[in-house]
Amino acid sequence: MNEAPVEIEEKLALAQLYLSEENIKGFRQEFLSLHVYEQGQYYLSLSEQDRQRMYYFLSPKEMADMFEVIEEDEQSVEVYLKEMDPQYAADMLSEMYTDNAVDVLKQLDKPDLRNYLNLMTEDSANEIKELLHYEDETAGAIMTTEYVSVEAHQTIRSAMAILKSKAAEAETIYYIYVVDPAERLVGVISLRELITHDDDELVSEVMGDRPVSVNVTDDQNDVAKTIRDYNFLAVPVIDNDEYLLGIITVDDIIDVIDEEAESDYSGLAGVDVGEQSENPFVAASKRLPWLITLLFLGMGTATLISRYEVLVSEASILAVFISLITGTAGNAGTQSLAVAVRKLADNDDKSKGFGSLILSEVLTGIVTGLTTGVTIFIVIGIWKQNFILGFVVGIAMFFAIIVANLAGSFIPILMDRIGFDPAVASGPFISTLSDLTSVLIYFNIAAYFMSFFVQTG
Amino acid sequence: MNEAPVEIEEKLALAQLYLSEENIKGFRQEFLSLHVYEQGQYYLSLSEQDRQRMYYFLSPKEMADMFEVIEEDEQSVEVYLKEMDPQYAADMLSEMYTDNAVDVLKQLDKPDLRNYLNLMTEDSANEIKELLHYEDETAGAIMTTEYVSVEAHQTIRSAMAILKSKAAEAETIYYIYVVDPAERLVGVISLRELITHDDDELVSEVMGDRPVSVNVTDDQNDVAKTIRDYNFLAVPVIDNDEYLLGIITVDDIIDVIDEEAESDYSGLAGVDVGEQSENPFVAASKRLPWLITLLFLGMGTATLISRYEVLVSEASILAVFISLITGTAGNAGTQSLAVAVRKLADNDDKSKGFGSLILSEVLTGIVTGLTTGVTIFIVIGIWKQNFILGFVVGIAMFFAIIVANLAGSFIPILMDRIGFDPAVASGPFISTLSDLTSVLIYFNIAAYFMSFFVQTG
Repeated sequence: MNEAPVEIEEKLALAQLYLSEENIKGFRQEFLSLHVYEQGQYYLSLSEQDRQRMYYFLSPKEMADMFEVIEEDEQSVEVYLKEMDPQYAADMLSEMYTDNAVDVLKQLDKPDLRNYLNLMTEDSANEIKELLHYEDETAGAIMTTEYVSVEAHQTIRSAMAILKSKAAEAETIYYIYVVDPAERLVGVISLRELITHDDDELVSEVMGDRPVSVNVTDDQNDVAKTIRDYNFLAVPVIDNDEYLLGIITVDDIIDVIDEEAESDYSGLAGVDVGEQSENPFVAASKRLPWLITLLFLGMGTATLISRYEVLVSEASILAVFISLITGTAGNAGTQSLAVAVRKLADNDDKSKGFGSLILSEVLTGIVTGLTTGVTIFIVIGIWKQNFILGFVVGIAMFFAIIVANLAGSFIPILMDRIGFDPAVASGPFISTLSDLTSVLIYFNIAAYFMSFFVQTG
Repeated sequence: MNEAPVEIEEKLALAQLYLSEENIKGFRQEFLSLHVYEQGQYYLSLSEQDRQRMYYFLSPKEMADMFEVIEEDEQSVEVYLKEMDPQYAADMLSEMYTDNAVDVLKQLDKPDLRNYLNLMTEDSANEIKELLHYEDETAGAIMTTEYVSVEAHQTIRSAMAILKSKAAEAETIYYIYVVDPAERLVGVISLRELITHDDDELVSEVMGDRPVSVNVTDDQNDVAKTIRDYNFLAVPVIDNDEYLLGIITVDDIIDVIDEEAESDYSGLAGVDVGEQSENPFVAASKRLPWLITLLFLGMGTATLISRYEVLVSEASILAVFISLITGTAGNAGTQSLAVAVRKLADNDDKSKGFGSLILSEVLTGIVTGLTTGVTIFIVIGIWKQNFILGFVVGIAMFFAIIVANLAGSFIPILMDRIGFDPAVASGPFISTLSDLTSVLIYFNIAAYFMSFFVQTG
């Protein structure tokens, strides 16, 4: 990124100097000339003492502009709020866009939340209270109420006047929503259309009269899909009676997409990659629940193998190929899992995918299983000069891969069906599970052929 | 999503009827009242015969508006282009935003590409040629040249006039870029600022004079990060001499983010989840390269175990825990891998992360290894009434996990260092590799303790 880094460094150094010298004017000049994102990064790098100074140097509104940016990924906003004078914090929250203020307030305890709401202006508090009750990860939870609306019978000129008057506080002014007197959404008009049409035309003549919208109860991923498909900068949120309740802007949708990608990725790896601490004890504590759970599932596999210990003691060569079969089946199962999770996420009509997805994975498993099975049959046959052993390992691998593909596609579909996020079915879980089935298949097949490769035979 | 589905269905049915009746007027009325995304979805559902009709019913410009939307994820654009009259196709490409036209043209053979360029207007062809030579996945490759620029000494009024005149063709009109007479970027002004300032003010008084921009050679992920961090709707692209070359809009960045997330996810699973066919042979052919490669890596593990076959034949109980140790270490390694890949993606200052990231993963491995090792020591000790066996398995698991975490963090870092995408280091690869090291550790430790659990001993 090019951003005249020298200039930024200079500005930051100056801001820091003025801050420590308590030179309000100098600090404000340097700090406020930064982009809010840069302000946020600077603020996050400060000591508590310096932050305290900032609260005296900046108005709640100025602080709010910066806070909009850091609330997204900062877990310590609670700490920052508590450092501030409660009235200052409440004023700042009032000045923020409602969706961002709600994000901050949701991280607080109930008593603190109530305290701040009491200190706010009634209007702000009411708007926030309305948004607070929407379920997490729905359109209602991520929408904001700062939009511009006009009525269809107005002229472009008067719409433009309303727009200008609301430009300072609206989260986007690039779409103007058209409502009827009861506040039902009837159209949308972009600022691009507004400025290219004649001032005397009516909004009703210019507006798109079949506005695409989302329902307030829609999942945030569906909202993301709409914004992405239609290349929107914002989408209106309505309730079942088509009342306009708010809007969701593209910058919030980028956060949703990021969040979702991170959660899918985390699910596949069996670890939350977003919340990783530098402290090995904290990091380990987040990974151990999965590891220990899988360890006990793995104990199932061990127990199973121990039931075949007699076989192994008679033909120790069998032990050589355990990890090869479990490993290959695990790899195939992980592939199936990833494909299934992704297809479930993309598929709008879920009823269709169920059977055909599993069938397709099993068929794919037959092809990959056959190919790897024949490969290993030849390799072992030549390597160990024992084509019967090769046959046993090959056929076991064939079936183990089919079962792994079945599990890799069936389990996420099942989770999706019973209302869980299919991405939670992790790769490690599928491969540990497939260890168990692979071992079962392998030893059962081997048992049939024991007479052919018992060493003492 | 709420979009008055009945109305859409009706419109689509009508459009289809008119299309088959060759009723141009009726078709155009229904079709053109759809959103371009809906037009695209409809077009994609048609037979070739119906598509051919559409080419006669719609102007190249109307076709271009729809093509902007479908080019993103459609692999068959080449087929569609070839169905069209070459001049019609060239006209359509001229009407598209340059970045999208380039995306389409990049999918063609050189001779076809040259052919279309020859049929285009000289201006369009030149603009496209300029963009074609930028490397894939850089800012240059995804930028477009349809932006609005003004000079600093102009008034807001004249800037607004320029904006209105360019509104129809510019990809975004919500930012206006301010350039000096030599076309160097000196400022940026948003339409929001434009409409809220007095007409007689000068652009230089209103504009932000430290515009954030990206370099034309920047990786598209860095562009995405800039847009996301600053909550921009578009970012200007400049070269090393600060000449303004183009802009990148947020809708293209959403595609970049999606692409990147899909590629990370695919990497972790060892399968390209984006290009999955319903045909099991095609699907299998995409998965087999990884599976067969890993099969041969797994053969390494098998060879290793076969060197310890004597140990196993003397103490078959050892075979029982092979998959438990390899599985658990593989799970831990996959977690490390995912965390490392994500940290590499987030980390701007890569020089810093190298040692500390590996150290942090190894330390985490020590904690998780110790916990799982002690757990399994107790479980096996009680289950098998053999604490020495438990000790062997526990200590092997401890070291196997540390090595898996080391491999899981070191390998992506190494790949990043030598210029590969670290996300290509897949979970299956790490777990197959860790099978090998785990077995080596396990049998070496077991060998020391053989006398304690040889059955015949």
